[in-house]
Amino acid sequence: MPSPVSPATHDQALSILAEPVASALVEVERRLENLIPEQIGGLVPVIYRHVLQAGGKRLRPILALLSCSAAGGDQSAAVDLAVAVEVLHLSSLIHDDVIDQATERRGRPSVRQRWGNRASILVGDFLVAEVFRRLADDLGRQSLTVLAQSVVDMCQAELTETENGPTEDEYFCNIRGKTAALMASACEIGAIAAGNDSATRSLHQYGEKLGLAFQIVDDLLDLYGDPGALGKPVLQDLREGHWTLPVIQALSEADAGQRAALLELLRAAPHDDEAARAAAELTAELGGRAYAREYAARLANEAAEALGQLAPSPAVESLRSLAAYVLTRHH
Amino acid sequence: MPSPVSPATHDQALSILAEPVASALVEVERRLENLIPEQIGGLVPVIYRHVLQAGGKRLRPILALLSCSAAGGDQSAAVDLAVAVEVLHLSSLIHDDVIDQATERRGRPSVRQRWGNRASILVGDFLVAEVFRRLADDLGRQSLTVLAQSVVDMCQAELTETENGPTEDEYFCNIRGKTAALMASACEIGAIAAGNDSATRSLHQYGEKLGLAFQIVDDLLDLYGDPGALGKPVLQDLREGHWTLPVIQALSEADAGQRAALLELLRAAPHDDEAARAAAELTAELGGRAYAREYAARLANEAAEALGQLAPSPAVESLRSLAAYVLTRHH
Repeated sequence: MPSPVSPATHDQALSILAEPVASALVEVERRLENLIPEQIGGLVPVIYRHVLQAGGKRLRPILALLSCSAAGGDQSAAVDLAVAVEVLHLSSLIHDDVIDQATERRGRPSVRQRWGNRASILVGDFLVAEVFRRLADDLGRQSLTVLAQSVVDMCQAELTETENGPTEDEYFCNIRGKTAALMASACEIGAIAAGNDSATRSLHQYGEKLGLAFQIVDDLLDLYGDPGALGKPVLQDLREGHWTLPVIQALSEADAGQRAALLELLRAAPHDDEAARAAAELTAELGGRAYAREYAARLANEAAEALGQLAPSPAVESLRSLAAYVLTRHH
Repeated sequence: MPSPVSPATHDQALSILAEPVASALVEVERRLENLIPEQIGGLVPVIYRHVLQAGGKRLRPILALLSCSAAGGDQSAAVDLAVAVEVLHLSSLIHDDVIDQATERRGRPSVRQRWGNRASILVGDFLVAEVFRRLADDLGRQSLTVLAQSVVDMCQAELTETENGPTEDEYFCNIRGKTAALMASACEIGAIAAGNDSATRSLHQYGEKLGLAFQIVDDLLDLYGDPGALGKPVLQDLREGHWTLPVIQALSEADAGQRAALLELLRAAPHDDEAARAAAELTAELGGRAYAREYAARLANEAAEALGQLAPSPAVESLRSLAAYVLTRHH
């Protein structure tokens, strides 16, 4: 019998990993669908539904639910928090599209493309305030602090983004804020929901390492992925003059001549697709691709190791497999 | 001896009204200046300082502090909440400037004009998350709910804004969310800080009526104010095709011929300054200006009446005078 694919995700491998929390995940999806009170009309529900139905992986809710279960809690205790972390993620995507002037997201028109900057900014703000409003009770308070801090970290990281020539340290500082902070929070609030204070630290660490590995793989997919499988064009980072780990490493390891050649391609990439492709290839030849892959693998290992102190359970096993999953995904 | 002018506001009349809470207001300003932790570098502190030093009236902190005192609390108990409500206000201004593509704010370049959409959106998001993060403790929880709800209301109101031809009901629904919600919350959290649950309702009502009157006066100033005293151009609403209470009333009371004449001017206003001026004049002739003034005065009276149940005190007296102040302000 095939494994049931949760309606919450279109990624079958992820659905299988999420099996220990499948029923809670269905409930998360139901609450996500009913998030906006019925008396609220106008653009808010329309835009929210557009974003919700774009079919994300629901990776952050899955992390929160699995973490809750792994920390010995009842998965249902983390449902509201899992909803909260996903809505914060969705609202950050809406604002990111305004920031990046994106026309598409997951193969559909972006919110800003379809409804403009005004509605995008306001709906994003609405969702953040609504999430925090819902968490301002006894149960949500501690998680609210954790989640609000990760939003602060996200904004701060995006504001210090260096357009050209970041160091490896700067790269990691950026992706830690941009991606890893919210994933770390997703895992930490799972432990909080379980009422297991001693597990918050290790699950936070797990989520952070996983998030870093996830983003490195994301950046590798942008350079070397299959646009068909990804559902979006590749080489976007180079087109935007944004250099990620493989490029940073290739530049730092290359000899003077190779470095000059790569720099020339990188500088041409924003207005020359052929140069962008050649820059990605040269980066691979110079070892940047392999370096980034190994780095991601090391981080995924460290993520799994951070789970060491938790009692064995199907949820812990899923979290461990998730660390391997982020390395192998193609989209 | 002249009354001391608080460094927190450049409006002398308002400073005098704020005297019962002058020391707490100085502390609010100090904490506003030190809001961003020192380890946070980059654009966040730079942009935040730009907005903070633009010199707002600090009306919302004054409302929170006076309300706390009026509800029998120690004004110092409301300092953190007064900071929170002002930062939420400032962050909404930063996002509003992106939404409105504003080039100036209070006679200086707007954040988006100087640092672009990306930084404006992210710093606004940063500030909201930072405020909610700080409120997620035992003391701030109840206020967090109130403040988050007012942000939700603000976004919702701005999203349902009708560009042309709103009814009077729609106008009030809009300004209730856009302006009155946060002022009502400012007053309500003052009562919460005072630990006086029985005063939350009347102070909320006071703040809401005051906020409605405040916005009607704002809209009147845009039509009939002195650009020199305002520090900004007038007739902006008509230029943006945005019809406020005087216009709505004039249209509904006019006979068919006058109505057609006014509509023609209103439709020309976005691309013809002379038509905008003439539309404002005709609106006044048709009684719209007087109607809106009387409406604002009635609301200010109702605001003062909502204070009736509070024990007499200098703070209550100031709140009462504030209701009169919003009617007379010229900027």
